[in-house]
Amino acid sequence: MEDAKPKQAPATSLQDIISHAKEYGFVFPSSEIYDGLQAVYDYGQNGVELKNNLKSVWWKAMTQLNDNVVGIDASIFMHPLTWKASGHVDSFNDPMIDNKDSKKRYRADQLLELKAEEYAANGQPEKGHALLMEMGRLLGENDLDAVRELIISEGIVDPISKTANWTEVRQFNLMFSTQVGSVAEDSSLIYLRPETAQGIFVNFLNVQKTGRMKIPFGIAQIGKAFRNEIVARQFTFRMREFEQMEMQFFVRPGTEMEWYEKWKAARLNFHKAVGLPAEKLKFHVHEKLAHYANAAVDIEYQFPFGFREMEGIHSRTDFDLKSHQELSRKKQQYFDNDLDENGKPFGNYIPYVVETSVGADRLFLAVFCNAFTEEVVGEGETQKTRTYLKLHPALAPVKAAIFPLVRKDGLPEKATQILKLLRSDFRVIYEERDAIGKRYTRQDLIGTPFCIAVDYQTLEDDTVTIRHRDTTEQIRMPISELKQHIGQAVSMERILEQL
Amino acid sequence: MEDAKPKQAPATSLQDIISHAKEYGFVFPSSEIYDGLQAVYDYGQNGVELKNNLKSVWWKAMTQLNDNVVGIDASIFMHPLTWKASGHVDSFNDPMIDNKDSKKRYRADQLLELKAEEYAANGQPEKGHALLMEMGRLLGENDLDAVRELIISEGIVDPISKTANWTEVRQFNLMFSTQVGSVAEDSSLIYLRPETAQGIFVNFLNVQKTGRMKIPFGIAQIGKAFRNEIVARQFTFRMREFEQMEMQFFVRPGTEMEWYEKWKAARLNFHKAVGLPAEKLKFHVHEKLAHYANAAVDIEYQFPFGFREMEGIHSRTDFDLKSHQELSRKKQQYFDNDLDENGKPFGNYIPYVVETSVGADRLFLAVFCNAFTEEVVGEGETQKTRTYLKLHPALAPVKAAIFPLVRKDGLPEKATQILKLLRSDFRVIYEERDAIGKRYTRQDLIGTPFCIAVDYQTLEDDTVTIRHRDTTEQIRMPISELKQHIGQAVSMERILEQL
Repeated sequence: MEDAKPKQAPATSLQDIISHAKEYGFVFPSSEIYDGLQAVYDYGQNGVELKNNLKSVWWKAMTQLNDNVVGIDASIFMHPLTWKASGHVDSFNDPMIDNKDSKKRYRADQLLELKAEEYAANGQPEKGHALLMEMGRLLGENDLDAVRELIISEGIVDPISKTANWTEVRQFNLMFSTQVGSVAEDSSLIYLRPETAQGIFVNFLNVQKTGRMKIPFGIAQIGKAFRNEIVARQFTFRMREFEQMEMQFFVRPGTEMEWYEKWKAARLNFHKAVGLPAEKLKFHVHEKLAHYANAAVDIEYQFPFGFREMEGIHSRTDFDLKSHQELSRKKQQYFDNDLDENGKPFGNYIPYVVETSVGADRLFLAVFCNAFTEEVVGEGETQKTRTYLKLHPALAPVKAAIFPLVRKDGLPEKATQILKLLRSDFRVIYEERDAIGKRYTRQDLIGTPFCIAVDYQTLEDDTVTIRHRDTTEQIRMPISELKQHIGQAVSMERILEQL
Repeated sequence: MEDAKPKQAPATSLQDIISHAKEYGFVFPSSEIYDGLQAVYDYGQNGVELKNNLKSVWWKAMTQLNDNVVGIDASIFMHPLTWKASGHVDSFNDPMIDNKDSKKRYRADQLLELKAEEYAANGQPEKGHALLMEMGRLLGENDLDAVRELIISEGIVDPISKTANWTEVRQFNLMFSTQVGSVAEDSSLIYLRPETAQGIFVNFLNVQKTGRMKIPFGIAQIGKAFRNEIVARQFTFRMREFEQMEMQFFVRPGTEMEWYEKWKAARLNFHKAVGLPAEKLKFHVHEKLAHYANAAVDIEYQFPFGFREMEGIHSRTDFDLKSHQELSRKKQQYFDNDLDENGKPFGNYIPYVVETSVGADRLFLAVFCNAFTEEVVGEGETQKTRTYLKLHPALAPVKAAIFPLVRKDGLPEKATQILKLLRSDFRVIYEERDAIGKRYTRQDLIGTPFCIAVDYQTLEDDTVTIRHRDTTEQIRMPISELKQHIGQAVSMERILEQL
């Protein structure tokens, strides 16, 4: 009985994921013919479909399943004062230090973190912990001279030059900037948005008034954001150009913790619905809170490199709207005509905000890693590893592939007819090259849930074989049933109805 | 009988469109609380849905209906050599001239165009035409001194200072640039892509090889592009941040004109299928071709400000792939094993490219302008103008709105049940405020094709009234039929099956 369960192949490494992503058209290094651009990636022909499907199901889960959540699409360019109000101009920094011998620059906090890990690895975890606490304190006070002294007193040396010939520690802003306008006197410095959230805040009243929204309500947005990361790594996990899916939920002050808990549960549920297993997901509560938050939690996924943040849920108070009100001198208030316990309207207030913010590229990476399946099949000499992407059918780049058994006797024409029958409903491809076993394998590798084979019997009775990716089982089915059979399985509704 | 046809209200101005777009949550000025950012706009809660629907139908039309077209999503940041190869670093310029008294900067070509229009308005169109020809010649030769002399000899003065105290004419590059990386010595100047096409070209071989694509095939992409336009105007028609929907179709050299004609016809057909009337669309053949093209045509739409380019179809030869091959020293060739007339494989070549490039924001604006309908209804004292958005149901932001007739007696609960029944299939909203006539009007103004009213009879026999936007007709229908009745009408397939 034990044998009925597929044997597991060795654990998947990030390198396996990167290779598979590139080889099968999911993710390519950007501008690869020019040797790439660090920490920037392009989605290939299969990656773009998977990513679009994830964006689409998030969008529907937010704006279609909730009557009180609507979307917007704000521009990447925003008025520069936006980033003054949000605090990004003044404090979206990393502390940097240069080694004068190697001429290399490092993040001061990361040098200290490495040292703390070294202590832990050498059986002195308390010493490592104490170092991190001290670092946190100094950075909190922005005492950069003391951070430098700490680096020196800990004997940290440059990994290249092996010297401790360090410069001062300086803050380096992570926003990209550019000049807009053509006349020198007239042009202004603007930033590429480092987060999509502010596009929602500055439009809060526009949406509330024109949409006649009643609190509580949310505004959802999907879009690119940009951060000049010093050390970008782990494939698409930390990129300089990335995509966020954010929702700001506006509530009456005092009710934010109730909504925070609701959205926490709803978002975890979403990740399960797209196929991520419960045991690879966990909450990580922030102990130290950002200046704008009164509660914050991450949903972490177990990537090949460990549990890491995929989504953040933050109770942001009225920090952002209040800052924009102060700087713009435009009231950011809502009149709440619901009645309080004394029978009087709650009246005017600046709403509190609960935010859910998921990295679209991180969700993509999690779903891709989770789908990557290697199973040992067969026995003895015929034993081999079968690799396939076990994607939810609604997320798969290609829903069905149609193969004529041979390239003659009218089979290609029959297969093409089926292709045309199905393709206005979902994405389906035709393939006639190579042996049919090879064609099945190729579809497994990109996660296609159904393969349809057209053979001589098809010409007689209008039936085909349909093969299911996960079981590799083939059943005979009339052509007339394909549209519904596949259509139901690949419908986004299969995911949405779990929410 | 004449009266049966709705009377037309006066022609719509761009100002009507801008106001309606803002008032009903379609398009807001960006960062409006900070008094906006010139030539940048945000899509509101209804605009984002309409735009997403247009993007989705284009994407499906390209990658789902054509077996030989696949998509990608390349990053906005690309290696800077990309823009050297494409010619943008050297020649993506506008000729600028400053007036020394007003300190204002102008596009030299636009000053001359205005002068030509002045000649035409004063009954001297030949003189205007001659001026434009001369300007074209001088700009073609990049003889900027002569352009300046032409401005002076034509007596063109600054509209503000009224003087002809002009500086030299200089070329101004329209690309936005930023610095990536943190170390001064190490950081590099990169550009925000001014077009999405190059993201396709640099990925040509990655897609061809990993997708085993056989020529002819296409790669489609939707994404943001950025141009530092000097004079940005006409609402979302010319923005500094905009979105393109481009497809590059790779063909065997010598067959490009055949594909150029096919795509020309297919793209015109697409615009008709999304609801743009034939009489508001026309081809404009380019007489003067860009350096990379051997044929080019625009599909123009009749905006309130006249016929303007919405889409370009260009036969780009092998210009781009060849340039990338030269600069990157990576072969950009395809091996074609199809047989020529002598029975030999066509062999290695750099493919030719036919491009279709539509501005997503321009298509949005065209569809929005076209949908904006004002009809005079009623007679005598009850005569009034009815305004509604006659959007294709598959494109409408909200597919159905559900109204309980009154806010009591269980009607809201019943209406909410229907909402929950429908919302995993399509976007539907609930509204209980105001008189029902007002609720209908509000849905008309955002283009909702169906309104469902729940009344006392509903409680008895599970039927509702369903009102159709365009006819305002109401019919009684069982709740059990709503999903299919509305679902069929709002399905993207209604558009796709016309292609």
